[in-house]
Amino acid sequence: MRQIKRSRWIPDRENLLVEETLFHNANGYIGVRGCLEEGYPDGYDTIRGTYINGFYDYVPMPQAEKLYGLVEEKQTILNVAEVQGIRLNLDGEWFSVFEGEILDSYRVLDMDKGITHRWISWKSPQGKVLEISIKRMASFTMLPLFLIEYEITSVNYNGKLAFYSMHSGKVSNYFNPDDPRVAGKAHVFLQVTDQESSSGFSRMTARTSKSGLSVTTAVRNVLAADSLPGHGRGGQEERVLETEEDGFTERITTYIAENESVRMTKYCIICDSTRYPGEEEAALALCREASEIPAEDWFGRQAAYLDKFWNNCDIGITGDHELTEALHYNMYQLLQSAGKDSRSSIAAKGLSGEGYEGHYFWDTEMYIMPFFLLNDPDTAVKLLRYRYHTLEHAKENARILGHKKGAAYSWRTIMGRECSGYFPSGSAQYHISGDIAYAVVAYYLASRDLGFMEEYGAEMLVETARLWMELGNYYEGTFQIHAVTGPDEYTCLVNNNYYTNVLARYNLEWAVKIIRILEEGGRAGKVIDKAGVTRAELQEFEKAAGAMYLPYDEKLGINPQDDSFLKKKKWDLSEIKEEEKPLLLHYHPMYLYRHQICKQADTVMAHFILEDAQDVEVIRRSFVYYETVTTHDSSLSSCIFSIVAAKLGMVEKAYEYFGESAKLDLFNTHKNTKDGIHTANMGGTYMAVVYGFGGLRTKESGLYLAPVLPKRWTGYYFQFQYQLRKIRVTVNARQTEIQLMEGTFLPLWVHGKLYQLTHRLIIDAAQG
Amino acid sequence: MRQIKRSRWIPDRENLLVEETLFHNANGYIGVRGCLEEGYPDGYDTIRGTYINGFYDYVPMPQAEKLYGLVEEKQTILNVAEVQGIRLNLDGEWFSVFEGEILDSYRVLDMDKGITHRWISWKSPQGKVLEISIKRMASFTMLPLFLIEYEITSVNYNGKLAFYSMHSGKVSNYFNPDDPRVAGKAHVFLQVTDQESSSGFSRMTARTSKSGLSVTTAVRNVLAADSLPGHGRGGQEERVLETEEDGFTERITTYIAENESVRMTKYCIICDSTRYPGEEEAALALCREASEIPAEDWFGRQAAYLDKFWNNCDIGITGDHELTEALHYNMYQLLQSAGKDSRSSIAAKGLSGEGYEGHYFWDTEMYIMPFFLLNDPDTAVKLLRYRYHTLEHAKENARILGHKKGAAYSWRTIMGRECSGYFPSGSAQYHISGDIAYAVVAYYLASRDLGFMEEYGAEMLVETARLWMELGNYYEGTFQIHAVTGPDEYTCLVNNNYYTNVLARYNLEWAVKIIRILEEGGRAGKVIDKAGVTRAELQEFEKAAGAMYLPYDEKLGINPQDDSFLKKKKWDLSEIKEEEKPLLLHYHPMYLYRHQICKQADTVMAHFILEDAQDVEVIRRSFVYYETVTTHDSSLSSCIFSIVAAKLGMVEKAYEYFGESAKLDLFNTHKNTKDGIHTANMGGTYMAVVYGFGGLRTKESGLYLAPVLPKRWTGYYFQFQYQLRKIRVTVNARQTEIQLMEGTFLPLWVHGKLYQLTHRLIIDAAQG
Repeated sequence: MRQIKRSRWIPDRENLLVEETLFHNANGYIGVRGCLEEGYPDGYDTIRGTYINGFYDYVPMPQAEKLYGLVEEKQTILNVAEVQGIRLNLDGEWFSVFEGEILDSYRVLDMDKGITHRWISWKSPQGKVLEISIKRMASFTMLPLFLIEYEITSVNYNGKLAFYSMHSGKVSNYFNPDDPRVAGKAHVFLQVTDQESSSGFSRMTARTSKSGLSVTTAVRNVLAADSLPGHGRGGQEERVLETEEDGFTERITTYIAENESVRMTKYCIICDSTRYPGEEEAALALCREASEIPAEDWFGRQAAYLDKFWNNCDIGITGDHELTEALHYNMYQLLQSAGKDSRSSIAAKGLSGEGYEGHYFWDTEMYIMPFFLLNDPDTAVKLLRYRYHTLEHAKENARILGHKKGAAYSWRTIMGRECSGYFPSGSAQYHISGDIAYAVVAYYLASRDLGFMEEYGAEMLVETARLWMELGNYYEGTFQIHAVTGPDEYTCLVNNNYYTNVLARYNLEWAVKIIRILEEGGRAGKVIDKAGVTRAELQEFEKAAGAMYLPYDEKLGINPQDDSFLKKKKWDLSEIKEEEKPLLLHYHPMYLYRHQICKQADTVMAHFILEDAQDVEVIRRSFVYYETVTTHDSSLSSCIFSIVAAKLGMVEKAYEYFGESAKLDLFNTHKNTKDGIHTANMGGTYMAVVYGFGGLRTKESGLYLAPVLPKRWTGYYFQFQYQLRKIRVTVNARQTEIQLMEGTFLPLWVHGKLYQLTHRLIIDAAQG
Repeated sequence: MRQIKRSRWIPDRENLLVEETLFHNANGYIGVRGCLEEGYPDGYDTIRGTYINGFYDYVPMPQAEKLYGLVEEKQTILNVAEVQGIRLNLDGEWFSVFEGEILDSYRVLDMDKGITHRWISWKSPQGKVLEISIKRMASFTMLPLFLIEYEITSVNYNGKLAFYSMHSGKVSNYFNPDDPRVAGKAHVFLQVTDQESSSGFSRMTARTSKSGLSVTTAVRNVLAADSLPGHGRGGQEERVLETEEDGFTERITTYIAENESVRMTKYCIICDSTRYPGEEEAALALCREASEIPAEDWFGRQAAYLDKFWNNCDIGITGDHELTEALHYNMYQLLQSAGKDSRSSIAAKGLSGEGYEGHYFWDTEMYIMPFFLLNDPDTAVKLLRYRYHTLEHAKENARILGHKKGAAYSWRTIMGRECSGYFPSGSAQYHISGDIAYAVVAYYLASRDLGFMEEYGAEMLVETARLWMELGNYYEGTFQIHAVTGPDEYTCLVNNNYYTNVLARYNLEWAVKIIRILEEGGRAGKVIDKAGVTRAELQEFEKAAGAMYLPYDEKLGINPQDDSFLKKKKWDLSEIKEEEKPLLLHYHPMYLYRHQICKQADTVMAHFILEDAQDVEVIRRSFVYYETVTTHDSSLSSCIFSIVAAKLGMVEKAYEYFGESAKLDLFNTHKNTKDGIHTANMGGTYMAVVYGFGGLRTKESGLYLAPVLPKRWTGYYFQFQYQLRKIRVTVNARQTEIQLMEGTFLPLWVHGKLYQLTHRLIIDAAQG
């Protein structure tokens, strides 16, 4: 049973915002924060949001000093409508968990069923006792559908009961001028342009002010017939659907008696103009379709969908229920967050909040893609196709940055254009283009899907490779890349960032390689024509890759993060006071840049993603060195250190790093879960188990495993898909069992030794 | 006769804004742009401004992305009031140079007299012919006084004549959202809080919205008695002083007959609350005082002041009148621009416009200070005392930048706080603290004024030296300075910028040296106590100076601009198209940073200011190298290249560089003179003559000269003050004559040879 349960749930002022995030309902297309249907008393902060993945408006972002090419307009995700509001009136008394008495309660995220459930046994100030059960769901089988099943059971009350169901366009985004991680200003983005109601349906269309997009919401409230038995005033129901300025309230009045239940289902359809052209009609039609199906059936479909999902990505830590639960939670959130229509990706906060304004970062490709590659390749393809879809914007961005050729993917974006207001840790992170190229190759290696490469992948590899040619230059026979920023945002605008250079080399090599592979299959014509690839250009790629400069320090025997990193002033990590953390909130960027201090894994990350570029002893020394200078002020860091520690056999250290990251949101350890979940970290914890402890690698040369077991675990298991196979790995202190669940036999490397996997392989721990 | 004259002056639409700058009246305290008193027709752009040096309001400057320590509020110079407006009505016809016919005209800046003069012989549309003479002056002898003498002589007109004299607080700053070099938005900064009129005086007080400063303007219009002879309606005069919302208009009606003249003097007093506490009363009192003195007398005092000025700084190019004129113009503008009250400095645009928002930069110390050091040491001291006055802000700025000790002067500021919105070419230019230290030492070397050093200079040297200790770190035995920007703004956030490091060394050395010198005189107590200087700290300074890392490339035998400069991609200057200039308006900063391309003199500038740090052959090779990579997109560049070329004996090259810079504003070669004069460039052209062709240096070891003569000149001469002496240098093809005009004899070096200057020294050119 995969679930997160808060028993004896009480509305804790501090925690309500965090729970809105943790219990949000999303399906990759829409997301609704887990706010209380009945609302909050005055003075309670709430981020009452409903979001659509990839739906945005433009916001001016003036630069303090205008310089050529600096970004002055960004995109932002929008709170599109209020649909979750349902207030309950009991003969004059309003239901509120902040009044009366909560006799018993719980709140559950049921990940097997794909729903959230709030249950309260409540005694009103006047003594009415009722049980209230609220189930919510963002449907995975009908993406525009958000559904609430609201059921009241009377314990001692006989009388009138009225639902007030809200459907409103009076919404704005959350803002907080004091927090650099959320938007600083309130904006009214959406204007309701059209609304109508008929036969119990309400429909509202709103248009963005600048991006020219529109969204239609349609709502229908249905009182379940079976919940209105022929008691006293049997089945009576009075409905008033009031049209207001920018919205509706439907009041549904009925009666309830002791031991009776009343159940209402609210069907909400959210369609935007990019995915549902003619969305006014589409939304109404879908609302009609959805509301003819009882909630129970929708729950059944949802459960079936999730059954399949979990069946594909089973994972667990034997004997550590809490950790297993955290892993399940993380994977479930990735599922909730991932765009599945090739027109959207995975926002830094998924669809759970407005932090980072709904932007997509490298997080998708480097932290989340592995989960989908190994468990849900269809979604992985769609995420890559989203990047292909924005390739023209990436080319345009490259031109803005001065480059005559190639594609420079935006560091943060929704529709493709750059949204970073501070280029030293924004556009300067050119590595994102390499990251996307890396993900394209990773998909190819895990799938051997030549069709994708022919149609999309090869072109992306060529255009990103061109960027490196534009960026780099030869100096004394080496190919160097200057004035870029690697993953570590405490060290910006540097020369020859190791991560960037080694990734650029890989990108250049694979651009050449994939053309060759396609040519061998007679399938290279398309990309050669479309991208205008020439033999000479491929030779240039090869030459640059061959001459790529990778900084190496002879004395320390490590790869310096960049040309000057080791010359900088040291900063003793033990001297950093608690109140100075994270450093970025207490030090001027230049001060950070001047020091040997890292926000996050950078060279260590390169040593993970391209581990064969260096001897393992170099990696070991690098790892040890960077440990002493890394603050892990980013949630993207610990998981990578965990993976590399595991690779180096430092299993207990790997465990420590892992422990810090797995429960970030569930325990709100970064204190900003209210703004949304940390999707990259969630992907990272998955990677830490599978790539870290499991030692999984999918390389050109084949499949690799190297399981290790931290002392505090009795065992663990995970499953994954690889080249049309399904494989299950079970590890305990005694042995590693590798099971080929589906597909044909394959050779694989376990702890550096080649095996043939036909059905089941059991390897003694001693051999590992 | 030093003057700039536009004969047959016509109101050219394109040129009016430029002339407003060129003919502005200023005295270092106030500045009034040379707008037409009678105003402009609709559709004519004008920057109708009246400014006070160092008078500012705060303006929000939000950052696109908030990061710790980034500046979010700047100061801006204010257009304080409209006082120059005088409209002239001739029995219903308004005087306007855009109507009727201009029969003859000129416009003059008379630099001997310190006034501007516009003279027009005008025929009105109805055929009235008059001569109008308008003289204007910002008084050097009463700084708050701006005066207009407006005289009308009738050729053929007999009738009514009315002056409408404006005094208005309805003013705002100029803005242009499309030009990054001026403010992007309109702001109303000043609110009129109080106004009154009595006995012909009008007074108005306005307060800034945020900085808490206020300004009072007082105006009196006086009709000269001698211009109202007993003709027809002899001496009649009707006055109406109308109070309006935020201002006044005084209407003075009289009569004029053929061959008669009427003359009005408008006395405007501008007092701000920082320099004239109780400025409401002070302004009125000063206005009363000023207006009791006839204009003619004020002009006389002004001429006497300028007589003294020119007497001290005579300079000329024999046989090149236009160039001599340009030099005079530049020096005059420096005089007009320089704050003389230790509470203000010299804005980038002086008091002639709002470009760069009235901010002070390193320009003062490195480009303008030499002129004052050599010609007007009293003003030089005041400019340095302004920096001393803002030392506490510099310390605060250092704390914001993360430094525990020391003073980091703001890159651009009015009252001391940093106003740079883009730190990579703002706060990162730490060299400004070294520049200020350099100017302190330069003043000491030229004056041996130990009193100043005891009171102010030594403390400034110690606090700036501390900054370098904070910034730098030891690496392999050398002292290195990372993540700073040198003068060249096309190469930002680099390591070991040669200019910065060599200047830091000088700063550290002089901090130690000056304490020693003061100790020898028994005068070190004050600074030691105040700044808490310890013996150990001085040893640290010495050690760091001794270990200072100065980049040197063995292969090229030059000083690279920084650690990575020579590794960057080259950019062939000849490939830059005209429409790409200046590069900063056409390329993303990162693109520039990635290339070996310089906006301006950087290492070459270091080779000028600290020429003894390198062998002359290194300097020669560096110069030749940097010539190939410098675009001179900054107006601060050519003059430095000229100086170093002259030093290296490349006299004709020096002449070419000089030619480009001397007439920048007079010929509006940078196309932005409308926003104000380029004070640094003006100082630079002076330096190019005296330091460049004259080879003047004032070093610890004494006074140096090395005159050279470009082919196209027959000769040149200049004067300067040095350690209480006045010296005149006259150069021609045959010889150099050095004359000790005042003071006791001294040894000096000419072309590397030691001489004793007692009265007059004549050195044959052949010896040079």
